[in-house]
Amino acid sequence: MPVTESSLVQRVKAVHECARLLASLDAAARNQALEAVAVALEAATPEILAANRTDCEQARANGLTPSLYARLELSPSKLAAAIAGVRQVAALPDPLGQRQLHRQLDDGLILSRVTCPLGVLGVIFEARPDAVMQIAALAIKSGNGAILKGGQEASRSCQAIMQAIQQGLATSAVPAGAIALLMRRAEITELLQLEEWVDLIIPRGSNEFVRYIQNNTRIPVLGHADGLCHLYVDVAADLDKAIAITVDAKTQYPAACNAIETLLVHRGIADEFLPKVAAALSQAGVELRGDALACHLVPMTLASEADWTTEYCDLILAIKVVANLEAALEHIATYGSGHTEAIVTENPATAERFLQDVDAANVFHNCSTRFADGFRYGFGAEVGISTHKLPPRGPVGLEGLVTYKYQLVGDGHIVASYSGDGAKPFQHRDL
Amino acid sequence: MPVTESSLVQRVKAVHECARLLASLDAAARNQALEAVAVALEAATPEILAANRTDCEQARANGLTPSLYARLELSPSKLAAAIAGVRQVAALPDPLGQRQLHRQLDDGLILSRVTCPLGVLGVIFEARPDAVMQIAALAIKSGNGAILKGGQEASRSCQAIMQAIQQGLATSAVPAGAIALLMRRAEITELLQLEEWVDLIIPRGSNEFVRYIQNNTRIPVLGHADGLCHLYVDVAADLDKAIAITVDAKTQYPAACNAIETLLVHRGIADEFLPKVAAALSQAGVELRGDALACHLVPMTLASEADWTTEYCDLILAIKVVANLEAALEHIATYGSGHTEAIVTENPATAERFLQDVDAANVFHNCSTRFADGFRYGFGAEVGISTHKLPPRGPVGLEGLVTYKYQLVGDGHIVASYSGDGAKPFQHRDL
Repeated sequence: MPVTESSLVQRVKAVHECARLLASLDAAARNQALEAVAVALEAATPEILAANRTDCEQARANGLTPSLYARLELSPSKLAAAIAGVRQVAALPDPLGQRQLHRQLDDGLILSRVTCPLGVLGVIFEARPDAVMQIAALAIKSGNGAILKGGQEASRSCQAIMQAIQQGLATSAVPAGAIALLMRRAEITELLQLEEWVDLIIPRGSNEFVRYIQNNTRIPVLGHADGLCHLYVDVAADLDKAIAITVDAKTQYPAACNAIETLLVHRGIADEFLPKVAAALSQAGVELRGDALACHLVPMTLASEADWTTEYCDLILAIKVVANLEAALEHIATYGSGHTEAIVTENPATAERFLQDVDAANVFHNCSTRFADGFRYGFGAEVGISTHKLPPRGPVGLEGLVTYKYQLVGDGHIVASYSGDGAKPFQHRDL
Repeated sequence: MPVTESSLVQRVKAVHECARLLASLDAAARNQALEAVAVALEAATPEILAANRTDCEQARANGLTPSLYARLELSPSKLAAAIAGVRQVAALPDPLGQRQLHRQLDDGLILSRVTCPLGVLGVIFEARPDAVMQIAALAIKSGNGAILKGGQEASRSCQAIMQAIQQGLATSAVPAGAIALLMRRAEITELLQLEEWVDLIIPRGSNEFVRYIQNNTRIPVLGHADGLCHLYVDVAADLDKAIAITVDAKTQYPAACNAIETLLVHRGIADEFLPKVAAALSQAGVELRGDALACHLVPMTLASEADWTTEYCDLILAIKVVANLEAALEHIATYGSGHTEAIVTENPATAERFLQDVDAANVFHNCSTRFADGFRYGFGAEVGISTHKLPPRGPVGLEGLVTYKYQLVGDGHIVASYSGDGAKPFQHRDL
């Protein structure tokens, strides 16, 4: 331990302390705090919009790209939607205090497994002011402290929003110190080292950014770097469904992590399917890159090895003709990122084999990969999509922000009674 | 990617391939393989015991400590118990294919969350030949491949056991290549780098050993380095229960991770309780080290700061007199390792506060910390005890060796139907 602590360590420890108090509050107190935050944000709307205008002017002067600018800009309706989002989080079921196991080990010896907060979340995101409101709301709802660091371009907006959040919390039972905003980029590096005080890092940003975070911390990271998703159109596919799903999965939002990058087509239907799907994709403005056989059937650019490993995040689609289901599974096992993989087929045995065999967080049959999303799954909120093997995997809602502990209540019970000669047996009866 | 792969990478990739096949087998096939392994181990009993005798002679010549020697030695009854353990694992409920969520997102669009294997486990353990049988059985049951590395002193025993396991698997549907044994210590370092092929590391050994593993891999590690557990005896404690629990928690198996290292005693009952518990502990051969007030009430060694941070794993107990519940909670928050913490009190409000406030995997009221154990919890098997904040936390059974995936089955459903003007609403109806 260093003799003098940095100001960041002091701040993070203060959040950690406040989080312990927050963790002890009941759902009513946490929900009341969220309402107070929503009211304070409404009251501070003029200040928040003014701060955002200054951020936007600066960003325009610095030549921020249009997509980043779109995320930075807060219109009155976008701010109102974000405030409505805070109230929606308040309306979600309480993720804390859920009993997941309830078992009588012996007379008067009762085991429970109960959900509880993680502690402190570290959330690092781009210049998206609305993220501050969403993250603060999710943290309060789940009983966790949070350290937020947004992109520099949004610094005034984030500060104005955080000031309103703190004012709201000051009128509630939740300690305002449970949510803190970092302003200096250099603090990210230091934050990633504070595994003693920070329990989960949630990065939101580009693949490269997430990979950097994953490679530079020992704190668990929720999220994914890559979303290289495939759609396999089987020989037994209904071609109309296959075309509609291909177009949706590629074009409905090409920059999304659950959009497809590669289309695998069974050789047995390639000559009929490829010209049709190519026409539909071209009409939607999609550039096609195919292997030799695909190029033979439909004129398109010849794909290189790099095309099977690239997440385009754009209106580009790689196409490969495969001999059979096994070849498709092999391609997915080799190049997939474990995010979302889909098959189109009317053959139930083939579909079952695909659903069983593919090792990915989301495996779909006869529907678009774009459904891989916490809101579409009905989770109410999405904290991120994880491609880790270990749970939480896939779209993660509030349950990703809680853990559990085992509580055992006895009446003087000791282990010696259940050991050695004359050991009492356990009952292990679920209640 | 290196141009030439090391022999270890080739072996691990082969296990990974075999694990994909293993993952596709149903419960009957996996259980039949476990029975075949048990039969093969029974048939090979003379060879296994002979190999173990050679390991033991060598170990005696090298002056292995008695406790390590006890773990190395395989008696006929210990081997028979381990083989019975393989059959017990076969009898456990199947951890795979469990549907954890079943939801209709819309007509004909059905979401399921289904458990599935992790992939490949890397298990590194001390010179305990029985661990090979247990780990192989747990891996096969959970549909995972496994790479095993045991302590050098048990190398002949482990090889003889592994040969029998492979012979048993050869008569089953499980590919024998799904379970592999490493023989060279240097391979551990390399194994820890193979995050692309190994999904979970399970270290079994000393605190230092686990810490080394945790600090030298990016693969998730299941387990815990420290088990610094406390027992707090409240002012409202029943002193007879408190004495029995203290003695059990300290002496029933002092080297266990769930044994207590520090006893916290409320000031209000210290003068009555301390002499009684000290007498009981002394009779059990426990050396006491107390803070100034404890030493004042009962003659014992004065504790230093190091005593609050030391996991003795021995018949030594540190004792601190605290002003109240808050002081006890503060001490536990500062020095606890998040493993198991317990309170003795007849005051329900105090107990509730303790169960709620203490941040540890296991939090107990009026019972011994020694109950923190997968078998005692009724999990049927214990893979390890995790002190991570994130799940799986606490004693981990077979569920710690599986993950899940989301399966979504539609009939041509696309996301565009649920977006923009005229968007269809989701139903999100649990089935």
